[in-house]
Amino acid sequence: MSYKLIKKFDNGIRIGEILTAHGKIATPFFMPVGTVGSVKGVSPKELIDMGAEIILCNTYHLFLRPGEQLIKKLGGLHRFINWNKPILTDSGGYQVFSLGKSKTGESLVKITEDGVEFKSHLDGTKYLFTPERVIQIQLDLGVDILMPLDVCPSGTATKEEIKHACDLTIAWAKRSKEYFDKKTKNFSKKERPLLHGIVQGGLYSDLRKYCAEELIKLDFDGYSVGGLAVDHETRDMWKTVKFMGEILPENKQRYLMGVGTPDDIKKATKLGMDMFDCVLPTRMGRHGSVYIKNQKSKIKNQNYSSHSVAGCYNLINLLNAKYKVDSEVIDTNCGCYACQKGKGFSKAYISHLIRSNEILGIRLTTLHNLFQYLDLMRGLKK
Amino acid sequence: MSYKLIKKFDNGIRIGEILTAHGKIATPFFMPVGTVGSVKGVSPKELIDMGAEIILCNTYHLFLRPGEQLIKKLGGLHRFINWNKPILTDSGGYQVFSLGKSKTGESLVKITEDGVEFKSHLDGTKYLFTPERVIQIQLDLGVDILMPLDVCPSGTATKEEIKHACDLTIAWAKRSKEYFDKKTKNFSKKERPLLHGIVQGGLYSDLRKYCAEELIKLDFDGYSVGGLAVDHETRDMWKTVKFMGEILPENKQRYLMGVGTPDDIKKATKLGMDMFDCVLPTRMGRHGSVYIKNQKSKIKNQNYSSHSVAGCYNLINLLNAKYKVDSEVIDTNCGCYACQKGKGFSKAYISHLIRSNEILGIRLTTLHNLFQYLDLMRGLKK
Repeated sequence: MSYKLIKKFDNGIRIGEILTAHGKIATPFFMPVGTVGSVKGVSPKELIDMGAEIILCNTYHLFLRPGEQLIKKLGGLHRFINWNKPILTDSGGYQVFSLGKSKTGESLVKITEDGVEFKSHLDGTKYLFTPERVIQIQLDLGVDILMPLDVCPSGTATKEEIKHACDLTIAWAKRSKEYFDKKTKNFSKKERPLLHGIVQGGLYSDLRKYCAEELIKLDFDGYSVGGLAVDHETRDMWKTVKFMGEILPENKQRYLMGVGTPDDIKKATKLGMDMFDCVLPTRMGRHGSVYIKNQKSKIKNQNYSSHSVAGCYNLINLLNAKYKVDSEVIDTNCGCYACQKGKGFSKAYISHLIRSNEILGIRLTTLHNLFQYLDLMRGLKK
Repeated sequence: MSYKLIKKFDNGIRIGEILTAHGKIATPFFMPVGTVGSVKGVSPKELIDMGAEIILCNTYHLFLRPGEQLIKKLGGLHRFINWNKPILTDSGGYQVFSLGKSKTGESLVKITEDGVEFKSHLDGTKYLFTPERVIQIQLDLGVDILMPLDVCPSGTATKEEIKHACDLTIAWAKRSKEYFDKKTKNFSKKERPLLHGIVQGGLYSDLRKYCAEELIKLDFDGYSVGGLAVDHETRDMWKTVKFMGEILPENKQRYLMGVGTPDDIKKATKLGMDMFDCVLPTRMGRHGSVYIKNQKSKIKNQNYSSHSVAGCYNLINLLNAKYKVDSEVIDTNCGCYACQKGKGFSKAYISHLIRSNEILGIRLTTLHNLFQYLDLMRGLKK
């Protein structure tokens, strides 16, 4: 068993660990997103310094550029990006659907029983992703945790469409698992990467249950909850997250894909989720926005009800005129390089840098946001 | 005396030190350029780690945004940018002339006896820089080494125009010195910043001699050689640099403004120059170009003739197709974070990052180039 549940707190948080070929990771954890093989704006050393234990990369992007064959030839993804800790890759399915639109909004994606035909968002070249090919790409990249190809329906899909997505997702999961098992049968226990099953089903409990049960039969190393990062701000996903936390196996790690704000993540851990990724800390940082922990959150926390939004973090934008003259760091309690517990860079300076298009500005906001996410995870383990 | 000449090597290199309010700096040295208060792409910590001892900022840019009054209010430039080592600011004269053009190429700058009237390149607002005002801005910024307002003629100026530029530069230098002395008379010896005189005169030895002699009479803390970074690639500036090295006082530091490539700097130190700044390492880095030390340079070096171009460095562009598959670091002998003596990031990866518009790509090339410049200076002191 690659996952070990060590302890379950009364508030629902599961403390565990996942063993991978590149080391042990304590759960729950957050994965900074390094889409094309680099967490935007941040160096591997900075990630290590702030306590990142694992990062996420994108199969779709790395397949298109520079190509998994080149990465394999150069010694695998870890060596290519100079990162010796675990890497998880998503299957590319989500990117195929979300990026597979022409300038007029027309879908460039064709789904068949066999797989997904799509056009590159870079140069329009046509490719076919089959479940087997997607596993092979990830094996060639040499990552630690793989996702199978799935069908991720849009937030406006009908129940019938979502049911069809579940059926294909299950069929592809089976093919993925068979291919993966065949290709990794000679791997040592230590070397063997981990493969997740991805549960779809939208906000329908019956479909979620159906999809989860079929995938559990296939005995994956862990389970991902897909389809909830799509438009999740406008829908109430929490009932579904709670339901998933209840029906997924206790002895496997659970990954809530693409979610979310610090408050979302905090809430989801209490509903039994173990793994998270989100572009928000890096993307918000590039827009000049930073997360600040509400100082009352410790008190609030004690009365925390797992079904209400906690609201422990504020998001402020440093481009707001008032920060032009603000001599304080973003958060005097924060230990990131930007804040240095009050001895770092003032909001006035960071605001000046972003206004002047200086890279250091968004480097500092990104470092701060990622540190806050990672620090939140550290806090949740206590 | 703020400058101390410690030793002069047979090859002409002067080993010395400059004492400033923010510490001692060993000469010869290179100043990374932090135009608006940040060396592009690099953090203060990274500058310290690579051995930078002083940086250069631009009076003109900081005056326009965020304004020296705000910086003064927030505790001065060192505190604003979180840099506790020495800072030199140029006078802004060069920027006024080089940036003071409308979209149709028309000059937006008006020079009078009193000073320079110009329009902001950011929003077109009209300002007047007088010699006194430029000193006051730099005193408000609280920098360690100041430059007076000068007139920097273009590379195509006639001898008469250059003579006129010298006359104004001398007159303004006198006003700058008087204002500076008055404003700093109550400073302790340790606190008092240093003021340079800037020698103009184009490529005319008689004008250079005239300008230098007049400035030497005013007894500045050090002397800058201006006007040679302008179009210097198409003109032979070396006779002038050599002449300046011969006639400037031995007991004051000499600053060759805005020059140049690593080979230029190496050569200039042998002609008696002590201080350098240049945007090349950062700008070239952002374009994907990196400096690589020629491994034969040590041998070449022994037979070095101070009047021939050394050619000890090659410049390669990582966007060249051949680097897409290059598994080697930029330079296995380099100790920068990008190279790590061979254990750093491959050219293939950096090339991939730059192609993908990932910030880390140009961060790595910039770090490498700055490290090479600083390492060159370390080598020249031996």
